[in-house]
Amino acid sequence: MSVAKEFEAANANYVASFTKGDLQLPPQRKVAVVACMDARLDPARALGLEEGDAHVIRNAGGRASDALRSVIISQQLLGTREIVIVHHTNCGMLTFTDEGIRDKIRVDLHQNADHIAFLPFGDVEQSVRDDIQILKDSALVLDVPITGYVYEVETGKIVQVRENQ
Amino acid sequence: MSVAKEFEAANANYVASFTKGDLQLPPQRKVAVVACMDARLDPARALGLEEGDAHVIRNAGGRASDALRSVIISQQLLGTREIVIVHHTNCGMLTFTDEGIRDKIRVDLHQNADHIAFLPFGDVEQSVRDDIQILKDSALVLDVPITGYVYEVETGKIVQVRENQ
Repeated sequence: MSVAKEFEAANANYVASFTKGDLQLPPQRKVAVVACMDARLDPARALGLEEGDAHVIRNAGGRASDALRSVIISQQLLGTREIVIVHHTNCGMLTFTDEGIRDKIRVDLHQNADHIAFLPFGDVEQSVRDDIQILKDSALVLDVPITGYVYEVETGKIVQVRENQ
Repeated sequence: MSVAKEFEAANANYVASFTKGDLQLPPQRKVAVVACMDARLDPARALGLEEGDAHVIRNAGGRASDALRSVIISQQLLGTREIVIVHHTNCGMLTFTDEGIRDKIRVDLHQNADHIAFLPFGDVEQSVRDDIQILKDSALVLDVPITGYVYEVETGKIVQVRENQ
């Protein structure tokens, strides 16, 4: 059975107890979360989000540069006024380089991916600082509070990343 | 209080009952979900995902073109072999045009955003078909099962989008 079919079965249970049918489009808590796509991180459970609360933008690494389009739409059209970034320990982005994945794609897929920046990083705390700075520096992003965390996949805990002293 | 501080308080409860500390990095169910960032959609609850199960990639609209980097990493480095796309009814992407948001940014932020394709759409079912096709057509994406759904924010139900006959 495909995973999609399993999702349909699980969704039937969700529908059976669904009570959130009249939520508004703009996020009620006026926040956009930018988080890694990692399977071990569930932003809703880990941060206490209910349906309707927050935009949740996720990509490989939780990289801000890859989330800009979504952050701009979130702020300009849907009224969010705070950003929370969540990267995490043991991230896949710590395990490769642009050169490495491009070589793999050339060998395995016979394709050229040199035009894609895959955005790996060598230090997860620095990656959070870098991404806060990218958002602060962008003239297309509003001057709103931005807080960055490292989620510990070992403990479930979020630890705030402070600016370098 | 910032929402970030509220997240920290909610996270303390999550940590107190956390039992998932030894999950593996590759998604156990070998699937990548591409979904909209919309606040009303919780992919984990709606699809029955537990921590460790699936990559969850989210952006404004759940657009495939904006998820390509993450899908490639998911497949090439972390072994996912199925893709599920989830767009939804009453999506913010149905409410604007590239020209409209660029004008707003020019007026409100005094900035030029003409270089950004914001990826709005006029028909949610067609947007799902378009995004399935983008992934099928990409030489950098493996030939894996791709299933697309529209999530009904009114009912919690996912409805599969079939190909045009």
